[in-house]
Amino acid sequence: MKILLIVGDGMADRPLKELGGLTPLEAAKPMSMDRLATSGISGFMNALSLGVAPGSDVANLAILGYDPHRVYTGRGGFEAVGAGIELRDDDLAFRCNFATIDSAFNVLDPRAGRIGDEARELTEALGDIRLKSAPNIQVIFKHTLGFRGVLVLRGEGLSEKIELKAPEAGLKIDDIRPTDDSEGAKLTAEILREFVKETYRILRDHPINRRRRGRGLPPANAIIPWGVGRRPHLKSFRELYGLRGACVAAVSLIKGICRLADMTVIEVRGATGDVDTDTLAKAEAAIEALEKHDLVFLHVEGPDEASHDGDLEGKLTIIRKIDAMIGKIMSHISLDEACIALMADHTTSLRLRRHTADPTPISIAYAEALRDDVQHYSEREALRGGLGRIKGIEVMPMLMNIIGRAEKFGL
Amino acid sequence: MKILLIVGDGMADRPLKELGGLTPLEAAKPMSMDRLATSGISGFMNALSLGVAPGSDVANLAILGYDPHRVYTGRGGFEAVGAGIELRDDDLAFRCNFATIDSAFNVLDPRAGRIGDEARELTEALGDIRLKSAPNIQVIFKHTLGFRGVLVLRGEGLSEKIELKAPEAGLKIDDIRPTDDSEGAKLTAEILREFVKETYRILRDHPINRRRRGRGLPPANAIIPWGVGRRPHLKSFRELYGLRGACVAAVSLIKGICRLADMTVIEVRGATGDVDTDTLAKAEAAIEALEKHDLVFLHVEGPDEASHDGDLEGKLTIIRKIDAMIGKIMSHISLDEACIALMADHTTSLRLRRHTADPTPISIAYAEALRDDVQHYSEREALRGGLGRIKGIEVMPMLMNIIGRAEKFGL
Repeated sequence: MKILLIVGDGMADRPLKELGGLTPLEAAKPMSMDRLATSGISGFMNALSLGVAPGSDVANLAILGYDPHRVYTGRGGFEAVGAGIELRDDDLAFRCNFATIDSAFNVLDPRAGRIGDEARELTEALGDIRLKSAPNIQVIFKHTLGFRGVLVLRGEGLSEKIELKAPEAGLKIDDIRPTDDSEGAKLTAEILREFVKETYRILRDHPINRRRRGRGLPPANAIIPWGVGRRPHLKSFRELYGLRGACVAAVSLIKGICRLADMTVIEVRGATGDVDTDTLAKAEAAIEALEKHDLVFLHVEGPDEASHDGDLEGKLTIIRKIDAMIGKIMSHISLDEACIALMADHTTSLRLRRHTADPTPISIAYAEALRDDVQHYSEREALRGGLGRIKGIEVMPMLMNIIGRAEKFGL
Repeated sequence: MKILLIVGDGMADRPLKELGGLTPLEAAKPMSMDRLATSGISGFMNALSLGVAPGSDVANLAILGYDPHRVYTGRGGFEAVGAGIELRDDDLAFRCNFATIDSAFNVLDPRAGRIGDEARELTEALGDIRLKSAPNIQVIFKHTLGFRGVLVLRGEGLSEKIELKAPEAGLKIDDIRPTDDSEGAKLTAEILREFVKETYRILRDHPINRRRRGRGLPPANAIIPWGVGRRPHLKSFRELYGLRGACVAAVSLIKGICRLADMTVIEVRGATGDVDTDTLAKAEAAIEALEKHDLVFLHVEGPDEASHDGDLEGKLTIIRKIDAMIGKIMSHISLDEACIALMADHTTSLRLRRHTADPTPISIAYAEALRDDVQHYSEREALRGGLGRIKGIEVMPMLMNIIGRAEKFGL
């Protein structure tokens, strides 16, 4: 038996007034998700402890069975590896956003109107960046997907003791500060401030941005690094579980986690990491990957992005697209041959526009499941599911047991 | 959003034969509690581990998010601080009961017929107590509420290695013994025995006690120390949660916990810590406190007292009074602005007259709650609530998440 593990990033939510007290999952009426739930057993999951709101990095690590408290070295490391950079142990890595800032270096739009392919061309304009504050530090920037990129600083004397939250409107670049008194932290903060300003100098009048302004779109006139990290070290998936694992994901974070776990990372044409992603292409990729692998981790980023934007229509749309993806998968895969587990990594509240610690629904369909009374894949029904409350780190051991490969203790 | 945390001490119970198999909470038919339950999500809580019966001290610590295994230094310390005594690190503190004993120093009634205000006058008769066994030890006794008081011993050479359970009928004062061979423990046991006998000498023929005997009431002819403790140290509530906290409670134990957590402790006229307490006055105090604070901890002691007395009518009465309190609160506070959490700290079995390790119902009402099918606030319905089984230490993280202030890990 094989495992298909499907994660809708930030897909769970709270009841919304504009939906008459329903959650987006309830309002979207996802028929295939409901079929998955009625074909299996459901429950509710907190990726971490009760009351702790997880980032996508630690939540997905936990779901794959890696204890974030042991392996997490900051987000940037996973992002850089996911972007295909050969990260060294001394490197500092950062997730980056193409953003819109003003001339006083305040962030106006942290995603530059969710700029798409144009960001690739803007990246070419950057050329080799050299910084006055640190001429010996190598600056590696790589565009990944949409408004996203990765920055790696390579050289001596750098420090991760920097306060760098995910950018939001109002962030002041001059507020990038060290969190300790070390020379390394001061230098690194100075480098980061100069990096943003240098990208602003190069990008602000780039023809693409002039064109965007002409069309009333926010220019992608700067690149903002955040989520500092070092190179993580993960035990390989095969060593941990004895499984050949593959990953179907758009965003670098998930690709990075899976590459570090030595899983096969499958590139899918049309996977954008946003609401406009091609979920049917991802379904096809996952079905195909399952032929040569024991486990496929299928991750869809879109619901989280819509939630952070407060975009209700977008969230409903991507949930329905994920539903279509699951429908396609279930018509191709027999529950005798594979178990299909569906979950969100965390709840992203559309109203609050951020991750919360609310538990997320999880349903696991397989032929031998003790089917419970749950009729819908939703936050509410999950609460009365047969699995009860579980933790992220318990997902993989449960799935291993379902396929008859549980860890043993005693004789 | 704000938090109102309501604890009915020992309010949960087991099914009782004299109620046709219902629990007091079921038999009392508390309409406002039921409204609270149907406006939110319910579950069942063990303050500590499964199968461990908690004292009110550790249960309420856990509910407020303080791990009792780390911070608990015995009950007396919390009681003394709650009584307004500036406790020093070297002091030994004790909870005390005005009690009825016989001339052989055996306890007949551990609460002297639940003596009320008369205990205050008896306290004045004590004057400055000097002990022959330890002339250099300062003896500080303070009456608090009803039959309750606090004793502090100040000076060198004292030890908390003393066996001192909550007094009950049959306890022999001469059985107060050290639990190790140290000189300090022997001395402290001797001091405590002498203290009880000295209070007996002063109180037995006090006019109040002669009057009580004349009315057929048990005299409060001795003061029995129990619950030895040292000064506890708690992180401030504001430091822990970034919240301005206030406490509305009658009994010193709860006031002490909250004072040590640097919460505002609000005195309420008519709050007695017994069944006769003025719960509507407490409701008003809580509503007012919520205007200037982010969290109000509203504690009602009465159900526990009735349970220890085996007083079924009293338990039903105080449950209905708490219900009226909740009704008043819910008519004043919008669930958009505050979440209201209702729980017992532990079960006190009326039949056994003591705390048990049974889980207690918890309901949390707030506008965004995933409402479950629970129709009544009761032990039985809680078992099928959407929250499932939680621990006391998880309550505060859950509430912090509800108001959008969850701890974060990862990005």
